[in-house]
Amino acid sequence: MITDSWRGFASDNYAGIHPEILAAMAAANVDHQSAYGDDVVTAQLQEAITEHFGPSARVFPVFNGTGANVVALQAMTERWEAVVCAQSAHIHADEGGAPEKMAGLKLWTVPGVQGKLTPDLIDTQVFDIGFVHRAQPTVVSITQSTEMGTVYSVEELRTLVHHAHVQGLLVHMDGARIANAAARLGVTLRAITTDVGIDALSLGGTKNGAMISEAVVTFSDDLAAKVPFLRKTSMQLSSKMRFISAQLLALLTDDLWRRNAEHANAMADRLAAGVAVIPGVTLTSTVQANAVFAILPAEVTRRLQERFHFYVWNHMTGEVRWMCSWDTTEEDVDYFVAAIAGEMSTAGA
Amino acid sequence: MITDSWRGFASDNYAGIHPEILAAMAAANVDHQSAYGDDVVTAQLQEAITEHFGPSARVFPVFNGTGANVVALQAMTERWEAVVCAQSAHIHADEGGAPEKMAGLKLWTVPGVQGKLTPDLIDTQVFDIGFVHRAQPTVVSITQSTEMGTVYSVEELRTLVHHAHVQGLLVHMDGARIANAAARLGVTLRAITTDVGIDALSLGGTKNGAMISEAVVTFSDDLAAKVPFLRKTSMQLSSKMRFISAQLLALLTDDLWRRNAEHANAMADRLAAGVAVIPGVTLTSTVQANAVFAILPAEVTRRLQERFHFYVWNHMTGEVRWMCSWDTTEEDVDYFVAAIAGEMSTAGA
Amino acid sequence: MITDSWRGFASDNYAGIHPEILAAMAAANVDHQSAYGDDVVTAQLQEAITEHFGPSARVFPVFNGTGANVVALQAMTERWEAVVCAQSAHIHADEGGAPEKMAGLKLWTVPGVQGKLTPDLIDTQVFDIGFVHRAQPTVVSITQSTEMGTVYSVEELRTLVHHAHVQGLLVHMDGARIANAAARLGVTLRAITTDVGIDALSLGGTKNGAMISEAVVTFSDDLAAKVPFLRKTSMQLSSKMRFISAQLLALLTDDLWRRNAEHANAMADRLAAGVAVIPGVTLTSTVQANAVFAILPAEVTRRLQERFHFYVWNHMTGEVRWMCSWDTTEEDVDYFVAAIAGEMSTAGA
Amino acid sequence: MITDSWRGFASDNYAGIHPEILAAMAAANVDHQSAYGDDVVTAQLQEAITEHFGPSARVFPVFNGTGANVVALQAMTERWEAVVCAQSAHIHADEGGAPEKMAGLKLWTVPGVQGKLTPDLIDTQVFDIGFVHRAQPTVVSITQSTEMGTVYSVEELRTLVHHAHVQGLLVHMDGARIANAAARLGVTLRAITTDVGIDALSLGGTKNGAMISEAVVTFSDDLAAKVPFLRKTSMQLSSKMRFISAQLLALLTDDLWRRNAEHANAMADRLAAGVAVIPGVTLTSTVQANAVFAILPAEVTRRLQERFHFYVWNHMTGEVRWMCSWDTTEEDVDYFVAAIAGEMSTAGA
Repeated sequence: MITDSWRGFASDNYAGIHPEILAAMAAANVDHQSAYGDDVVTAQLQEAITEHFGPSARVFPVFNGTGANVVALQAMTERWEAVVCAQSAHIHADEGGAPEKMAGLKLWTVPGVQGKLTPDLIDTQVFDIGFVHRAQPTVVSITQSTEMGTVYSVEELRTLVHHAHVQGLLVHMDGARIANAAARLGVTLRAITTDVGIDALSLGGTKNGAMISEAVVTFSDDLAAKVPFLRKTSMQLSSKMRFISAQLLALLTDDLWRRNAEHANAMADRLAAGVAVIPGVTLTSTVQANAVFAILPAEVTRRLQERFHFYVWNHMTGEVRWMCSWDTTEEDVDYFVAAIAGEMSTAGA
Repeated sequence: MITDSWRGFASDNYAGIHPEILAAMAAANVDHQSAYGDDVVTAQLQEAITEHFGPSARVFPVFNGTGANVVALQAMTERWEAVVCAQSAHIHADEGGAPEKMAGLKLWTVPGVQGKLTPDLIDTQVFDIGFVHRAQPTVVSITQSTEMGTVYSVEELRTLVHHAHVQGLLVHMDGARIANAAARLGVTLRAITTDVGIDALSLGGTKNGAMISEAVVTFSDDLAAKVPFLRKTSMQLSSKMRFISAQLLALLTDDLWRRNAEHANAMADRLAAGVAVIPGVTLTSTVQANAVFAILPAEVTRRLQERFHFYVWNHMTGEVRWMCSWDTTEEDVDYFVAAIAGEMSTAGA
Repeated sequence: MITDSWRGFASDNYAGIHPEILAAMAAANVDHQSAYGDDVVTAQLQEAITEHFGPSARVFPVFNGTGANVVALQAMTERWEAVVCAQSAHIHADEGGAPEKMAGLKLWTVPGVQGKLTPDLIDTQVFDIGFVHRAQPTVVSITQSTEMGTVYSVEELRTLVHHAHVQGLLVHMDGARIANAAARLGVTLRAITTDVGIDALSLGGTKNGAMISEAVVTFSDDLAAKVPFLRKTSMQLSSKMRFISAQLLALLTDDLWRRNAEHANAMADRLAAGVAVIPGVTLTSTVQANAVFAILPAEVTRRLQERFHFYVWNHMTGEVRWMCSWDTTEEDVDYFVAAIAGEMSTAGA
Repeated sequence: MITDSWRGFASDNYAGIHPEILAAMAAANVDHQSAYGDDVVTAQLQEAITEHFGPSARVFPVFNGTGANVVALQAMTERWEAVVCAQSAHIHADEGGAPEKMAGLKLWTVPGVQGKLTPDLIDTQVFDIGFVHRAQPTVVSITQSTEMGTVYSVEELRTLVHHAHVQGLLVHMDGARIANAAARLGVTLRAITTDVGIDALSLGGTKNGAMISEAVVTFSDDLAAKVPFLRKTSMQLSSKMRFISAQLLALLTDDLWRRNAEHANAMADRLAAGVAVIPGVTLTSTVQANAVFAILPAEVTRRLQERFHFYVWNHMTGEVRWMCSWDTTEEDVDYFVAAIAGEMSTAGA
C-alpha cells in the first residue's frame, strides 16, 4: 500500500477528469441523440477539428489510444503491408501485441534516438520493395511527444514526413500526448500535423484530462472513407458517442488542451530541475514533455516506491519514469524532490 | 431532419446517462487512482458483482458490447473452435464482422425462435466433433433478453445450459439487455446466470442508462485467468477504468439496474398495448423486454420516420422495431401511439 | 478395415496421380530453376493459361483449394468486407473456418438450390450497404461444379455474374472441380469463366488427377497485383514451384483435364443409372458432375461402409455421397452397384 | 538472363528432386488411399519418425516451411502470447509477415550471434511476466542450422533449452535445414531435438532434395492434440498426403537425409576454402552448414550475378550468400571459385 501522496508520478492516466471536461459531459446529457456519432456534439467536434487542423481533417472518436492506433494503421495498409516504428513505440512495446493480433500488422522496429525516428533510421527498413518474402513497409509511425518524453521539432517532422513520402510511405502520428508536444513547441496542433504532411493522427485526450476520449484524425478522403468501417470491426465504435466527443470538444475549447499540457510540462521541468542537483541521480532523456527519466540506485527506487507510485522503465539499468499530469501541483513536485533527496542521502549508508 | 419528439423509439442507446450514474462518475473523480483497473472503485465493483452473482463471478470492465462479446468468446475458444448462435444474434448480424475479423471466430448460425436458441437447434450444429474439416463448435452464445425483445425463462435457460454442458459446450450470454430480462422475470441477475450455469456473461450497462460501461463477467478460474490478457490485446482495456466501474457500480446500487429496466419494459408494454388495437398494425414478436416489433404499411413507416427516429428491421416484410429506454415517458408513448393511429387512418386513403 | 475394393467412392482425392502428370513432374526435374515461380515451367503454364482463359488471365499456383480460395477472397475484399456464398460452399462448411481464422472473412450464407446461388438468393444478403454495423457484402463466391454435384449452365453464370456486377459485387468461382463442369457442358474453361465475367477463379487440379496443384487465376490487373503478396503471407508460396506448375500444365496439355473429367462424369452417370433402378434407393441431387447423392437405409449404409469407403453426407436424412474419379473403372461401378443391390435386397429382412 | 552455369549458388531450393525421392513418390502412386493423412504411407512415415526421434514424436506433414512454423507456433501459444527469436530468423525476416498476419503472433526479436540465440539474449526479452501491456513471451524459436549457416552444438542446445524451460518457455526449432546441422555435428536427428528437450520441430525436406515436403513434429501429447486442427485452419492439410509423406519417408530411409546434407555441407566447405584464399574476399560467418557468406566488391558481385544466380544478403555491407545443395558438384564449385577469382583480379583495374 502506498503510504504517501496519492498524487504520484506513475502516469498521466492516474489523474482524473478535468472539471471543464466533466462539465461538458454533463452538458451533453440532454434528451436523446442519434447513436454512433450522428449527433450534434460530434458534429460540433468536427467543426472544432476543422478549425484546429484545417479542412482536410476528419475526426473519428474511439475509446482508447491502442484502438486509435490500430484503426488508423489498418486504414493505411493493405493486408500484406508493414509499419516502421521505433522499438520504444507504444504500438510495439506496450499494447500487448494488439497491432499484430487484431490487425495482422508487421512492425519493423529500429532503435530510435531518445524515442525518435530519423530519415536514416527509416531507410534501414525500406528495402526489398516488391519482394514478397518481406512484409512491405508502407507506413512510418512516429510518436509526438515520444514515449521517452522528447519532442520532434517542426523542422524534424517536415523533413521526416517529406522523406517518407518521397519513398512512397505514409506517416502516422501517435499523438497520445500531442498536446504536450505542441505546448512545448509553442505551436498549434496543425503546425505539427496537417502542415507537415502527417497522413493520419491518433489524437489523445485521456492523458490530458479526459476520461475516455481518443480519436483517429485523417487528412485524406481515401483514409476517411475506410475508418468508419474499421472503427466498427475493431470494436471502437461508441454507441453514445456524444459523450466522447464532448470531452475532445472541451479540450479544443478555450485552449484547455494547451493549458493542461503546459502545466504538466512545467511540472516536469520543475521536477527535472529539482532532481538534477541531487548527487547520484542521473537524468537520462531530454525533458521536453511531461515525463522525466532518471537512473538512481535500486534500493532508493525500492524505498521510494513504498511511498509513491511510479514505474521502473528499465530493470537492467535502473532507469525510472516519472510522469506529471494536468493536476500535478508544485507542492507535489517539491515534496517528491525532497523525498528523493532524503532517500538518496541515506543510500548505501 | 426529425421534426417531432427528440425522445424517439430508435434505440435505448439514443438515451443519455441516468443522473445517479453521472453523479457516481463525478464522485469517482477525486485525486489519483492506479490505472487499468487497480483502483478502489473497480475493487468496489468486484464486491458488488460478488454480491449480485456469487463468489465465482469475476468482473472485467470493457468499453462496449461488441468488445465484451469478442473478449469473452476468445477466452472460451481455442483458435480452431466455433460458436453456435442464432442468426439474429448481435455477434452475427450487427457487429460488422468483428468476431471473425478480430478473433477469427467461426459462427455456426441457426434460425432461432423469436431470437431464442433451443437444445434441438443447438444439436443441428453439433456434429463432426474431432473432424478437422469442420470448425469445432465448443461454445453456445445466447442473448438475454434477445435481439427480438423476448426473454428466456429460468427453466429454459437451465435446460439449455445443461444440454450444452452435457455435450461439452460452454455457454456465453450476451447480456447487453440482461437487466430487462431479469426485471421482466422478477428474478435476480444471479438467477439467470450463475444459478443456471452460464460460463461467461457480457454484462451490459450502456443501454440501461450508463454512458460507456460494459463488462465481461466470468464464472470460472480458467476463464478469469485469460480475460485480462485478451481484454488488453482486444483494445478494450481502459486506462482510467474507475470511471467505467463507477457506472456499473451505480447500476448495481439501490437496484438502479432494475428500476431503469422495469421502467423501459413498462413503456414497451404500454406501447404494445396501444398499437395492438390500431387496425392494420401487426405485432410480430412477444413483448417481454423493452422492444416492440410490428409490421405496418411502408408508406406509414416512411411518414412516421419523418417525425420520429426508429428503424426498419426487415425491409422485405416491412417490420419495424421500436425501443423504449429508461427515460421514455408515458407521454412519449401516448403521443407516438396517437401519431401511428393518425398516420394509419390516412394510409391508402 | 475396408474389406473390399480399394478403389472406393469416398472422394476424388483418394485417387492417385495420372501417369501423364507424374511424367510431367519428372520431366521438370532437370537441373536448377529459380525458386518461387520465376522458372520456365511456370512461364509455360502462364502461356497455357492465356491460351485457355484469354489474355486477361494471370495464374498463381498454390498448394490446395482452401489456400486458393482464401488467397483469392483476400485479394477481392477490404478488411471489413464480406462474402456471400451457399451454406453448402466448401469455404463455409469444409475448411475448418480457415476463411474466418486466417483472413477474417465474414461469410453471409444462404441455403442454395442444389448447391447453387441465384440472383434472388444473392439479393437477400445485399442490404445495409454503407452501414458500418453490417459486414459489407462485396464478393459472391460460387462453386462450379457445386459441392452437390450440380453444374451452373453458361446462361445461369452469365445472368448471375451480371447481376452481381450491377450491384457492385465481384464474383469468385471455386473451381476445385471446374473441369467436371466444363466437360459436362461441353464447353471450354474460358466459356464458364472469362467469357461470363468471373473476376477470380480457384483453379483445381488435385481432384482431377494431380498430386498437389491448385492455382488462383485472376482476370484483372488490380487483383493480379495483390495475389503475389497474399499468396506469400498466406503460406501458399511453393519454393520449388516448377513442380506444381508442371502438373497444371500437364492437365492443360492435350485436353487431359477434359479427358479425366469426362471419364469421372461418365462413371457417375453409370453409377446413378445403376442405383436408380434399385428399389429403396433415392437419388437426391441431379448428377451433373462426378458426384452421386442418394438416400438409403442406415443399416445398408453401415454394411456397405464395411466394404467400401464413402461418406454419409447428412446424418439426419441418411444421405450419402459417392464420388467417381479419373481412375474409376466401369468394373468398379458395376461391382459397387451390385453390392448396393445385394445389401438392399437383404435390408430389413 | 544468366549466361553461365545453371547450377548456381542462389538457394538450395533451386535444386530439383533427388531421384530416390521421385521414385518413392511414383511408388506411392498405386490405387486409392484415404485422403488427408489416413493412408499407409503416412503411417509408415510415423513409424520412421518414431524410430528417428523416439516414441514421443508425432509427425504432421505440411506444405512448406512457413506453414510448419506458423502451425507449430500457434499450437505452442495462447492468443495473447509471443515468440522470442533472432532478427535473422526466417519467421521474422523472410515469411512476409505470415506469423503476424495469419496467427497474430508477436515476435520479440534480438540481434543474435551469427544467427544464434543464447540464454542471455533470451533473458533480455523475458520480463513483465503477467503484465498485460506486454505480449507475453512463452516460446523461443531457434533455427538449426541457422539462417547464417551456423550450427548449434548439442551442448549449446541443451543449455539453451534447459534455460528456456526453467523460465517456463517452450522451445520451437525451425529445422528447415536440420539435416545439414546433424550431418555437420555427426549426430542423429534425435540428438539435437528429442534428447535436448525441443518441444516442437519444423522438419524440413524440401531444401534437402524433396519437392514439397515439410512437417510439424511434436514431442508432447498436448501439442499433438492441437496440430491437426491448426494444420487444417492454416491451409496446410494436403488431401493426397501420401505423396508428401513418401518424400519425407524417402529422406529418412537409408540415411538419404544425411547423404544429401553431408554432400551439400562438403561443397560449402570446398567453396569456402576456395574463396578464402582469394585476395579481397572476406568470409563473414563460420561455415557449418551449406551456406557461405562473404563480402566482396559490389562491382564484382554485379558482374558475377550476370553469370550466376546468387543473392546479396546485405546491401549496405555488400555481403553475399552462396548456398550449396544436394546436387552441387565439385566442378560447379571449382568453376565458380575460378570465376570469382577471375572477376576479383580485374576489380578496380
